[in-house]
Amino acid sequence: MPREVTGFSNTTVKRLRALRDKKARRAEGMFLAEGLRIMAEARDSGFLPEIIAFADEGAKHPLAAPIIAATEAAGGDAIHTSDDILTKMSGKDNAPLLIGAYRQPPTTLDRIDRRASDVWIVAQALRDPGNIGTILRTGDAVGAGGLILIDDCADPFSVEGVRASMGAIFTQAIAAAPWAEFLAWLRAGDGQLVGTSLTASDDYLAARYAKPCFLLIGNEQQGLPADYEADCDLLVKIPMAGRADSLNAAVAAAVMAFQVRASWR
Amino acid sequence: MPREVTGFSNTTVKRLRALRDKKARRAEGMFLAEGLRIMAEARDSGFLPEIIAFADEGAKHPLAAPIIAATEAAGGDAIHTSDDILTKMSGKDNAPLLIGAYRQPPTTLDRIDRRASDVWIVAQALRDPGNIGTILRTGDAVGAGGLILIDDCADPFSVEGVRASMGAIFTQAIAAAPWAEFLAWLRAGDGQLVGTSLTASDDYLAARYAKPCFLLIGNEQQGLPADYEADCDLLVKIPMAGRADSLNAAVAAAVMAFQVRASWR
Repeated sequence: MPREVTGFSNTTVKRLRALRDKKARRAEGMFLAEGLRIMAEARDSGFLPEIIAFADEGAKHPLAAPIIAATEAAGGDAIHTSDDILTKMSGKDNAPLLIGAYRQPPTTLDRIDRRASDVWIVAQALRDPGNIGTILRTGDAVGAGGLILIDDCADPFSVEGVRASMGAIFTQAIAAAPWAEFLAWLRAGDGQLVGTSLTASDDYLAARYAKPCFLLIGNEQQGLPADYEADCDLLVKIPMAGRADSLNAAVAAAVMAFQVRASWR
Repeated sequence: MPREVTGFSNTTVKRLRALRDKKARRAEGMFLAEGLRIMAEARDSGFLPEIIAFADEGAKHPLAAPIIAATEAAGGDAIHTSDDILTKMSGKDNAPLLIGAYRQPPTTLDRIDRRASDVWIVAQALRDPGNIGTILRTGDAVGAGGLILIDDCADPFSVEGVRASMGAIFTQAIAAAPWAEFLAWLRAGDGQLVGTSLTASDDYLAARYAKPCFLLIGNEQQGLPADYEADCDLLVKIPMAGRADSLNAAVAAAVMAFQVRASWR
């Protein structure tokens, strides 16, 4: 049976709210997902929250109620609360139907089975969690295996990252590593490392991509460090037609990933 | 000579801060741009602010000072203030070098010269100003002529939109119109209207795109209304490989626009 929780000062309410902060996520090893669409995607991908919170609307919703029931059946903590408290926890204007706190998976490189997909996205020092979530969503759509985060990136398990991923946080493998460690791992097996660079001579439409292809996307402001570019097997250029000399990082990842896939057809 | 302004209660400081709100932008017919990169892009594209604000660092910066001087030479109001006030005006953690208030261009369809480019992006009911700014940035990169906003969209001249555009707000033509008005305008001349749809049978990689091509992107949640799809000359599908059935709107616009350009090479 769900517990009735009506106060902001309730320990579990406070604990869920705290997961909006990175420190608490690190300490607890948990993260938040909000809304029916993302939490249904999680359930369909085999993930149930350890804590689930909802109000009257969620409790009787034909698609939300089974997720609540499955969470309880798996030993999770189900909390029946008010719209007001849900809204406060979500930080949005309207209460989501559901909020869930999930166990964060490990993000070590040994989690990545490079044979599981022909395309992997590698992002370096991305600062915007929305970009990271959008890249996860694109990765899912294009059939990538996952996302490898290099150096100091924003947290993919932040509320903004999870929201932008539209559920792909549960379907894409995620790893994080410093560059040297990633490169050692990469070179211990097959894999073509492809960077995009304004100074490259190979056009991205004419280049030949090998499987598995690791697409390297640089920081929003600085792009890729020169020595990282030098480590790439292939550097390609996306020709710019206007005044701009760069694309949004998530857009660049998408244009490259879809072109790599197209080149193999 | 720049005016020295030290108080938050100064009329011009209040006026600039107010431009963060859509109502004030509408009433004044002006919008804000922040930072050297975007404001240099504006100047290089022929736009100077009517009001420019900066602190000591901007006043002596070799790239910012000429923009201040050009603004004054053109009769603009130059305001020398403090980092503290600049920070408050920008809503970011750090003071930008420059803040400018620009006259908003008209956004009627007669501003669009369809012969000026082979690609135009048409966005319907987009809610996220960051998506609109990112689409403008992509449009500039891919050589699109501009962006036509259909129905009730977020404001491209919002601070978030201008920031995400990375200056493309000054290089891309922007129009706004209800669907019926847009369609009448479109059919009065050349133009292939291309929508993306999950139910389309034409693969986006195999389709033939005609010039000028108008790429129609739907709302983040609902996609395109069925009757808008029915008005399209061509409906194409971007095949999805994962669990997701959609892309971020700005990503979808980019994948389509780059593929249209690639198909003509």
